Amino acid sequence: MATAEQLQAWHELAQQLRIDSIRATTAAGSGHPTSSMSAADLMAVLLSNYLRYDFGNPDDANNDRLIFSKGHASPLLYALYKAAGAISDAELMSLRQFGSPLQGHPVPVLPWVDVATGSLGQGLPTGVGMGLAGEYLDQLSYRIWVLLGDSEMSEGSVWEAFELAGHYKLPNLVAIIDVNRLGQRGQTMLGWNTQAYCDRAKAFGWNAIEIDGHNLTEIDEAYTEAISNTDSPTAIVARTIKGKGVKAFEDIGGWHGKALPEEEAKKAIAELGGERHIIIEVEKPDPQTKPASIGKLEALQLPTYKQGNSIATRKAYGEALKALGAARPDVIVVDAEVSNSTYAEDFAEAYPDRYFEMYIAEQQMVATAVGLQVRKYKPFASTFAAFFTRAYDFIRMAAVSRANIKLVGSHAGVSIGEDGPSQMGLEDIASLRSVWSSTVLYPCDGNQTAKLVAQMADCEGIVYLRTTRMKTPVIYSPDEEFPIGGCKVIRSSNRDQVTVIGAGVTLHEALKAYEELNNQGISIRVIDLYSVKPIDAQTLYQAVSDTNGNLIVVEDHWSEGGLGAAVLEAFAGTETAPTYGGPKLQVIHLAVREMPGSGTPEELLHAAKIDADAIIAAAKSLLKQPVGASA
Amino acid sequence: MATAEQLQAWHELAQQLRIDSIRATTAAGSGHPTSSMSAADLMAVLLSNYLRYDFGNPDDANNDRLIFSKGHASPLLYALYKAAGAISDAELMSLRQFGSPLQGHPVPVLPWVDVATGSLGQGLPTGVGMGLAGEYLDQLSYRIWVLLGDSEMSEGSVWEAFELAGHYKLPNLVAIIDVNRLGQRGQTMLGWNTQAYCDRAKAFGWNAIEIDGHNLTEIDEAYTEAISNTDSPTAIVARTIKGKGVKAFEDIGGWHGKALPEEEAKKAIAELGGERHIIIEVEKPDPQTKPASIGKLEALQLPTYKQGNSIATRKAYGEALKALGAARPDVIVVDAEVSNSTYAEDFAEAYPDRYFEMYIAEQQMVATAVGLQVRKYKPFASTFAAFFTRAYDFIRMAAVSRANIKLVGSHAGVSIGEDGPSQMGLEDIASLRSVWSSTVLYPCDGNQTAKLVAQMADCEGIVYLRTTRMKTPVIYSPDEEFPIGGCKVIRSSNRDQVTVIGAGVTLHEALKAYEELNNQGISIRVIDLYSVKPIDAQTLYQAVSDTNGNLIVVEDHWSEGGLGAAVLEAFAGTETAPTYGGPKLQVIHLAVREMPGSGTPEELLHAAKIDADAIIAAAKSLLKQPVGASA
Repeated sequence: MATAEQLQAWHELAQQLRIDSIRATTAAGSGHPTSSMSAADLMAVLLSNYLRYDFGNPDDANNDRLIFSKGHASPLLYALYKAAGAISDAELMSLRQFGSPLQGHPVPVLPWVDVATGSLGQGLPTGVGMGLAGEYLDQLSYRIWVLLGDSEMSEGSVWEAFELAGHYKLPNLVAIIDVNRLGQRGQTMLGWNTQAYCDRAKAFGWNAIEIDGHNLTEIDEAYTEAISNTDSPTAIVARTIKGKGVKAFEDIGGWHGKALPEEEAKKAIAELGGERHIIIEVEKPDPQTKPASIGKLEALQLPTYKQGNSIATRKAYGEALKALGAARPDVIVVDAEVSNSTYAEDFAEAYPDRYFEMYIAEQQMVATAVGLQVRKYKPFASTFAAFFTRAYDFIRMAAVSRANIKLVGSHAGVSIGEDGPSQMGLEDIASLRSVWSSTVLYPCDGNQTAKLVAQMADCEGIVYLRTTRMKTPVIYSPDEEFPIGGCKVIRSSNRDQVTVIGAGVTLHEALKAYEELNNQGISIRVIDLYSVKPIDAQTLYQAVSDTNGNLIVVEDHWSEGGLGAAVLEAFAGTETAPTYGGPKLQVIHLAVREMPGSGTPEELLHAAKIDADAIIAAAKSLLKQPVGASA
Repeated sequence: MATAEQLQAWHELAQQLRIDSIRATTAAGSGHPTSSMSAADLMAVLLSNYLRYDFGNPDDANNDRLIFSKGHASPLLYALYKAAGAISDAELMSLRQFGSPLQGHPVPVLPWVDVATGSLGQGLPTGVGMGLAGEYLDQLSYRIWVLLGDSEMSEGSVWEAFELAGHYKLPNLVAIIDVNRLGQRGQTMLGWNTQAYCDRAKAFGWNAIEIDGHNLTEIDEAYTEAISNTDSPTAIVARTIKGKGVKAFEDIGGWHGKALPEEEAKKAIAELGGERHIIIEVEKPDPQTKPASIGKLEALQLPTYKQGNSIATRKAYGEALKALGAARPDVIVVDAEVSNSTYAEDFAEAYPDRYFEMYIAEQQMVATAVGLQVRKYKPFASTFAAFFTRAYDFIRMAAVSRANIKLVGSHAGVSIGEDGPSQMGLEDIASLRSVWSSTVLYPCDGNQTAKLVAQMADCEGIVYLRTTRMKTPVIYSPDEEFPIGGCKVIRSSNRDQVTVIGAGVTLHEALKAYEELNNQGISIRVIDLYSVKPIDAQTLYQAVSDTNGNLIVVEDHWSEGGLGAAVLEAFAGTETAPTYGGPKLQVIHLAVREMPGSGTPEELLHAAKIDADAIIAAAKSLLKQPVGASA
């Protein structure tokens, strides 16, 4: 039972957090003071007595993690940093100004922010990833405290986090749900029905505690219960009042995301007892404890494939990943219940302790990867290319988080065959290219896949590898190198009349077209664009210049935003000047333009006009030769 | 209580459904017989005694809806169609063949399929949309029966559907969960813990019934209970056995998604009692009942804005949508708890009966739209542009469903200002362009917005409108027309040296650049690309030809896949030939390339180098004039 003195200290701090939230947002002219005020008591007790964190050493593996899943309450988070002595009052007051790291929503430009939030329903899922790291990999006693708003409880991703945290029985995860009843535009779906939140949490395998979120004793007891719970995650469902502490703003609509006008702010601060600048000593974790050993780096022995044999790049991915796992104990793999299709199972079978099944919960899968990389692991996440669309917001936010994650999408394109369009990834290159910091790779054979997988581990940002369902011939020697950002000119002569750029499946179609056209006396240059982003613009410029501007791009992807766009964007200039100085481009772009159905890979490649026949016809069209005519 | 005769008839039908699932998949050489067999008893009773459906008239508003959320069990669905006399045995046996409407996963090429499934966890959410239509709009007594697999219960989207169906108390919605324990690669998260599914369903406000999914009496009683329940949706949680009916395949791993070899199939069919061809009379609904009147089309009175005034396009959207609502009673609006930001609230306040709050559940929001359009409504769904990334898989699948839905994303681009990158839609054009059948619109002023909104109602496919947070000047007269697929040349002379293409916010920057450059004696052509897809290639060709190939594209979007890619793709040829015959392009592409932070819109547009200053510098670079120099 907390002492009266303790209760008073918590109260004083909570009032400061409210005041600072008001001050910072009023100075900024925008922001979310009322959403910060509802959670101030919850956070005051947490910071004072439960959080174990060395603000001077945010990289300490033993630090607890504090995630504001309700990222719009960033003023409260920054007020906590100030109260912990991590930032000055002047820094606090730079909130939302151009160049300030104190952005409208938290981003890891600040060293104490692990992951960006602001797209609701993401903080808890990334917390699950950190919880898995703490419980199963690091085997350290740090806790992950996640503050959620009640509105975001309607995001399905939150329930993916609940189910998986329950499944993996993460005692180190504590969700603090700030049930202030009011969302952005009115009452939330459940209002103050905290019982319903508890019932749901329990049904998903959690310990759940209902409290008055402004009763400091109840808050204290809830945290004590949470940290003594050893076999499940805990949800603290706190009934709170939006704008708590200032009568004029308590529990009223219309004040979400609005800064108080100066006069109102002045009155509010007075009502809260006036400005104060308490700095508390946040308890540090024991720095002596070290993460469980993840072994040491060993020499990598990649699988190799014999030229002329055939293997699906997805299978080569699995085998290369397993090899990487032997060499790199920091490689962790997650998959969304399709590991026998993506071949992540090769790794899972060899290293079950470093594999986490995410079941069919792609959002949580990507969030887990983001959480794992906070603790410096190298997570690879795989599912069908099509199903990364399910996690697109998480991938987008992973980029805002400056996360280093590896995504592998199998079953890309119409070449999957009979399963039909729901299973075909036909927008993955477009959507993944349009993610900041992303790298997009698309191998065409087993040896190339293995070399790319090896490079992915240390490649920064969001790295995406697109693999193919069907077997494709091994065309490269195991000794060949494929640097990210490069491409391979695989057919070339000084008589080349057309450059054909393909990747993955279409590269093999280009090779077939090469043979046929060669027989007809037409020479084409064939480029394997295995690195779609970054792109090797200079090599493309040279080839296109050599072939008098004649260019065919062929891709197993919708016609928008994919390989074609990547190539065409490379031929445009950036902000300073055009970069291509060769002859005028004459481009034919072969891509999927009609909705495919079921069929064999061959039937579907032909119907989509992205097979060798289509390439041959396009080449002849560029050269103004009648299609079907021999030279 | 069912008679022995009735039980026997159901059993016979169930065995036929199993046999046909085996026959069709074995003939196809791929597919999911075992996942079909587990649900055969459930579906046999449904088809025989509960489904009300006129297979001869699938458009009858009174028909029940049957959705296979576990779309991979399509053999079972097609076997039902055969049993109902809707398709022949020969058609059934065309499963998965090129050109057959019986694709690997159901698509609405078949008249009895309302929505495509195959991306798991989507059938129930679209069923919620249909349930809302039935209960609140049509006010008809049809029911929506949704067959789910247990693996897909881990998708967060399923819980969005549960929470919203519970919130809206949809008695017409029945979820039949086929708990066969085995997912694609092993046991599901909950195995046969049917109690846990029930607890979760109840916690989300549903009636839940646990049954043995192979006990025909229990199945019958569960359906009876479901249809007599009038104040909540019902979940029937059925414990089943994968591969049920053929001992060698019952409840064993390794047989997910695999057709039986011919010999095995023969034995299995014998074990199931041999091939049979029962056709049953499915009870038709009463065709006399009509949907509640949704009124008649009235003349549209769009809002108009005075040139020179300023209004945010998001606000003009709200006002135009309200006007459309007055004229079109079939317009229905959904929003993800941000209607006071997207301005969908203007409609919601005027027509509360045609507005459904989806809270912060973007996947369910899009699914609701898809469900509503099955019943011919014209759904508009709005949230921040950034948060449509959350529903990208649903948008992708809506295209496979040939759905007609309208999506409106506000707060696009860095120009939103202080809220920071988590709230900035910077990949929306790229991702939405890469959706089959999509239309992408991006207005720059109030009058243009209103005219585009009016056209959206009857535009087919996935129609996306991108709106802007900040106010922008009204530059067009209310009388101007903006056909979808067009663009506007808004500054033009025969002295133009550079074509500048912008849209939305950047169009206004282009106009500022025009003034400044004009003062310096440099004339630029300015094009408003309000219709990004489809794109008016011919007008762009003409402008670029007139300006000697000099082209600047400027966009408030990542540099990949957006306005720049749309323009460049238009300058490439499609499968037959290059389409642009003008002078060689000299392109500068201005787009967002670094991760933005908080700041004012002006600061952020400048920092991203997509403002008038950047356009001026780019124009001078193209003309090889020193930047800053006057003519």
